[in-house]
Amino acid sequence: MSTLTIPQRLLMGPGPTNTPQSVLDALAQPTIGHLDPVFIRLMDDIKSMLRQTFLTENPLTLPVSAPGSAGMEACFVNLLEPGDKVVLAINGVFGKRMLENILRCGAEPTVVEFEWGQPVDPERIEQALKQQGQVKLLAFVHAETSTGAISNARELCALARQYDCLSLVDTVTSWCGTEVAVDRWQADAVYSGTQKCLGAMPGISPVSFSAKAVEAIKARQTPVQSWFLDMNLVMQYWQEDAPRVYHHTAPVNSLYGLYEALRLVLDEGLETRWKRHSNAHALLVQGLEELGLQMLVEQPARLPMLNAVKVPPGVDEAQVRQRLLQDHGIEIGAGLGPLAGKVWRIGLMGDNASEERVSGLLSALAEVLK
Amino acid sequence: MSTLTIPQRLLMGPGPTNTPQSVLDALAQPTIGHLDPVFIRLMDDIKSMLRQTFLTENPLTLPVSAPGSAGMEACFVNLLEPGDKVVLAINGVFGKRMLENILRCGAEPTVVEFEWGQPVDPERIEQALKQQGQVKLLAFVHAETSTGAISNARELCALARQYDCLSLVDTVTSWCGTEVAVDRWQADAVYSGTQKCLGAMPGISPVSFSAKAVEAIKARQTPVQSWFLDMNLVMQYWQEDAPRVYHHTAPVNSLYGLYEALRLVLDEGLETRWKRHSNAHALLVQGLEELGLQMLVEQPARLPMLNAVKVPPGVDEAQVRQRLLQDHGIEIGAGLGPLAGKVWRIGLMGDNASEERVSGLLSALAEVLK
Repeated sequence: MSTLTIPQRLLMGPGPTNTPQSVLDALAQPTIGHLDPVFIRLMDDIKSMLRQTFLTENPLTLPVSAPGSAGMEACFVNLLEPGDKVVLAINGVFGKRMLENILRCGAEPTVVEFEWGQPVDPERIEQALKQQGQVKLLAFVHAETSTGAISNARELCALARQYDCLSLVDTVTSWCGTEVAVDRWQADAVYSGTQKCLGAMPGISPVSFSAKAVEAIKARQTPVQSWFLDMNLVMQYWQEDAPRVYHHTAPVNSLYGLYEALRLVLDEGLETRWKRHSNAHALLVQGLEELGLQMLVEQPARLPMLNAVKVPPGVDEAQVRQRLLQDHGIEIGAGLGPLAGKVWRIGLMGDNASEERVSGLLSALAEVLK
Repeated sequence: MSTLTIPQRLLMGPGPTNTPQSVLDALAQPTIGHLDPVFIRLMDDIKSMLRQTFLTENPLTLPVSAPGSAGMEACFVNLLEPGDKVVLAINGVFGKRMLENILRCGAEPTVVEFEWGQPVDPERIEQALKQQGQVKLLAFVHAETSTGAISNARELCALARQYDCLSLVDTVTSWCGTEVAVDRWQADAVYSGTQKCLGAMPGISPVSFSAKAVEAIKARQTPVQSWFLDMNLVMQYWQEDAPRVYHHTAPVNSLYGLYEALRLVLDEGLETRWKRHSNAHALLVQGLEELGLQMLVEQPARLPMLNAVKVPPGVDEAQVRQRLLQDHGIEIGAGLGPLAGKVWRIGLMGDNASEERVSGLLSALAEVLK
């Protein structure tokens, strides 16, 4: 085999996004032991920065040593036991994935479905909560990466509290690109991924659990079905106030990258970063409309960092993506599920939420569509 | 937070080991999309190199996107269903971890225990297989990282076949440091980790499943309890002969590191690499004996890459490790479980299996023990 040569791409799809050079440089720092005092301090710093970016004081806030899908699974397998009732909102791919997780926990989901591209309607969720009674968990996706729709997490979490159930929120695509306010929402469990608006390499999934969620985990009647994701064990490995108990070997270099990416976010400031994402989005939408293209999602449910754009009739959508990649080195995403062939998904995440990157993409797109 | 500064350490504990510079450089290559044609080729190359290092033709050979503990879990949750009978050998920490996995699958283990530091005795395993009848799986650890004992994988896998059950082998510490011959053993499932004798950053777990194991996975009556680790889905994401089906976002940069580390191993040659590990081990043992120290494990069950050394009476073992780290920048490992406080664990993995590194460690140890 020859040595690795990776081309430069501009990643303007649904993620991963481009990783800033200083994060790549951090990845390449020398590996040290996962029990080294220097690494222990790094773990504490990461937890602290995760809390700051999730706007939470939750002590159980840490990075799961695996991609966002494992973070999702960590939330479900820790909170659910066989027979538990769940109300689940589905308005895209990631809601469907949640269903897979719920079923594999032996829990009993009531699914409330929405058209793809629509946000979750709190009224229909409230009906389901009311009808079911004794629901353990309400689960929904804050920012549906497959459609570009944002749902009202604050309102949905408030409903969960009102009906005395836990709330579980997918913030993979929203975190660090728009407000994710875990404590203000009073969300009980959230998970995210590193390769979206944080702008780091993919592979790590930050999670945060409220005190109420931790109580539920500790009160389980059955063991968590995953050893690797069992928060009873993982929290002992990440704890600060008592000696750490070895669980698994942490992905040391990836956590260097996570540290640096979090540092960059906090250095920029959360609100500045959210504003930058929404400004880039406004520019993009304006430019797309000037090209005669239409957005899938209506206002005010449009996500700033994930823009689903309708493919005009008669256009070969795959060819457009291929030409963008081959001629311009720009990656954009295809539609998934019922939206396959019908939309492109344009991501503005991390460093790519900038006027310059938006202009570059719009010029390239104009040329390809000519 | 300040920017990250990681000290140089010589990692001579149970892993992670030092990552070669070219692997660190690979990690820092630009992130690209996990559906990019360049990345798809990289996935195929990684699978091919994994097969070469595991000495197997198994098509289902791929890196699980999470650490070795998740690779272990991937093997158990795919092969086991509730009620399945398992014979499990336990001769250290990782056998005990296997038990945790088996119980969480709802399977029924028969545990055959051995003193820590002893290899697994095939005779006692055969007794258990005979007594139980209709056993679905025999599970054992090839190279016990907690004790430094190697067991006879070829013989144990042959017993599994003889009693018509599947074999599952932990090769975390042995792979790329001594012979792991999946096809010759006719092992049905193996998993490993990247941070041991491969000498890459921690965080990825290569696995390989035989045709018989794949049949068992496809013939399951119940869904795999983990969505993230369900090989029915993961294999569709990694398949070469049909369009890939999106499962999760691969840890792109870590896979660059894996590629480069595998390339280095094959460039050196497997047998040369094994010989280098066993030479370094011989030098280490000789040097330790000259210092008046004793090995925990008797020949011929000593692992070359993981050496458990008895702590002499009256010596503060934690202080020795601390001084090695603080004064010499060398990390060695502590004992676990019943061996806590009784042994040190000295790793000779990847680049650290060299005459120079062994001499350096021996000098430092001599000084600290003076």
